[in-house]
Amino acid sequence: MNTLYHYALSPFCRKVRLSLAEKKIEVGLVEERYWERDPDFMRRNPAGKVPVLKMDGMTMSDSAAICEYLEEAYPTPNLLPRDPKARFEARRLVGWFDDKFYHEVTAMLTGERVNRKVMGTGYPDSSNVKAGAKAIKYHLDYMAFLLEDRRWLAGNDMTLADFAAAAQLSCLDYTSDVDWNRSEAVKDWYAKIKSRPAFRSILADEVPGFTPAAHYADLDF
Amino acid sequence: MNTLYHYALSPFCRKVRLSLAEKKIEVGLVEERYWERDPDFMRRNPAGKVPVLKMDGMTMSDSAAICEYLEEAYPTPNLLPRDPKARFEARRLVGWFDDKFYHEVTAMLTGERVNRKVMGTGYPDSSNVKAGAKAIKYHLDYMAFLLEDRRWLAGNDMTLADFAAAAQLSCLDYTSDVDWNRSEAVKDWYAKIKSRPAFRSILADEVPGFTPAAHYADLDF
Ligand SMILES: N[C@@H](CCC(=O)N[C@@H](CS)C(=O)NCC(=O)O)C(=O)O
Ligand SMILES: N[C@@H](CCC(=O)N[C@@H](CS)C(=O)NCC(=O)O)C(=O)O
Repeated sequence: MNTLYHYALSPFCRKVRLSLAEKKIEVGLVEERYWERDPDFMRRNPAGKVPVLKMDGMTMSDSAAICEYLEEAYPTPNLLPRDPKARFEARRLVGWFDDKFYHEVTAMLTGERVNRKVMGTGYPDSSNVKAGAKAIKYHLDYMAFLLEDRRWLAGNDMTLADFAAAAQLSCLDYTSDVDWNRSEAVKDWYAKIKSRPAFRSILADEVPGFTPAAHYADLDF
Repeated sequence: MNTLYHYALSPFCRKVRLSLAEKKIEVGLVEERYWERDPDFMRRNPAGKVPVLKMDGMTMSDSAAICEYLEEAYPTPNLLPRDPKARFEARRLVGWFDDKFYHEVTAMLTGERVNRKVMGTGYPDSSNVKAGAKAIKYHLDYMAFLLEDRRWLAGNDMTLADFAAAAQLSCLDYTSDVDWNRSEAVKDWYAKIKSRPAFRSILADEVPGFTPAAHYADLDF
């Protein structure tokens, strides 16, 4: 059986869960409280980060490397286009959401609100929360700009870029940090991706002590 | 003419420079003081980060996406193995150095020492410097562990993982932050990669106001 060691509100885990589900690869989910640095976990991934995927005889870490592997070993359906330039654009946006968006927004909002409490490292740092709330506006506007002449973020087909973005936004939506009224185009895009069967398990996530936003699992939000 | 907008002591720029040079793709280097957020630069890359590569009619950003593009469009020489599992391992390590190593080590040492002065944001934060100096030991030991039964970091062939690692370490070496006596295996590995023609331009880098370590460009260090 394939196993994914994950944490529900980790966007990198969610990106991998979406890829696996879209490719219809079954996987057992095991919650990993990575901040406790359990010795078994540290042996699986000396980087001490989630996600970790046990599959095909390997113990894999790094969500970007995992998604590229899944794409090569399980190409149906494709989550990257065929043309090298179009592949570049999809990967550029994966990098945008995994690196820039995560550090500027998700870590500042969902990270501060949930992780600190769960990990017992104190109260949210209000200057971080403020910075995240400001940054998300810029990012939503950038997404709206991309969606002006594209059906999906990287072009006219759904790609890993959409999963990378939805992985971040779904964490923020759990903590009510997304203003869906800011852009019709972004809201429509999220409604489209949220209604895919691959999204179901994410919408069913519950973190003890944190009730998700009322509309979190609502397909008609 | 291809153009790379870069900053000398940015490890992500160095990784791309190494890939380009190894593939014998000529490129003009333009220094980008990215923290000044010049409007032309922000138009080229709304993420406001270096590297940015103008090539093949595109203006590309995100070093991981750029390196994958170069690998697909200019496959000689290959910097990723052929087998999906071996490719996974190379990419996992690229992620390790770009994400974990960079945040835990390079940003804490070279980042604190050079960038703060150049950008005018004050003195190095000594608790960061201390944390970086501690973390680099763990990372060098991890590299030594990998090199116990591999010729290169990801296996018996040189890959992007070696460039990702050498890109970080060469920045740290510029600021005398690497203890090469910690591991013979790591030192030998660095000597091997440092002597490649692709490394020459990096060894010639000079940041005004910061003299590199005496042995920085020395192939016999
Ligand atoms: N580059 C990694 C990043 C994963 C990551 O940062 N995960 C966070 C949880 S959202 C984590 O495990 N952090 C623990 C740590 O950095 O020590 C990936 O894409 O898998
Ligand atoms: N994921 C990006 C990271 C690049 C990056 O962080 N570059 C730094 C310089 S070493 C930068 O431009 N930082 C400016 C900023 O984050 O605003 C890549 O791989 O290209």
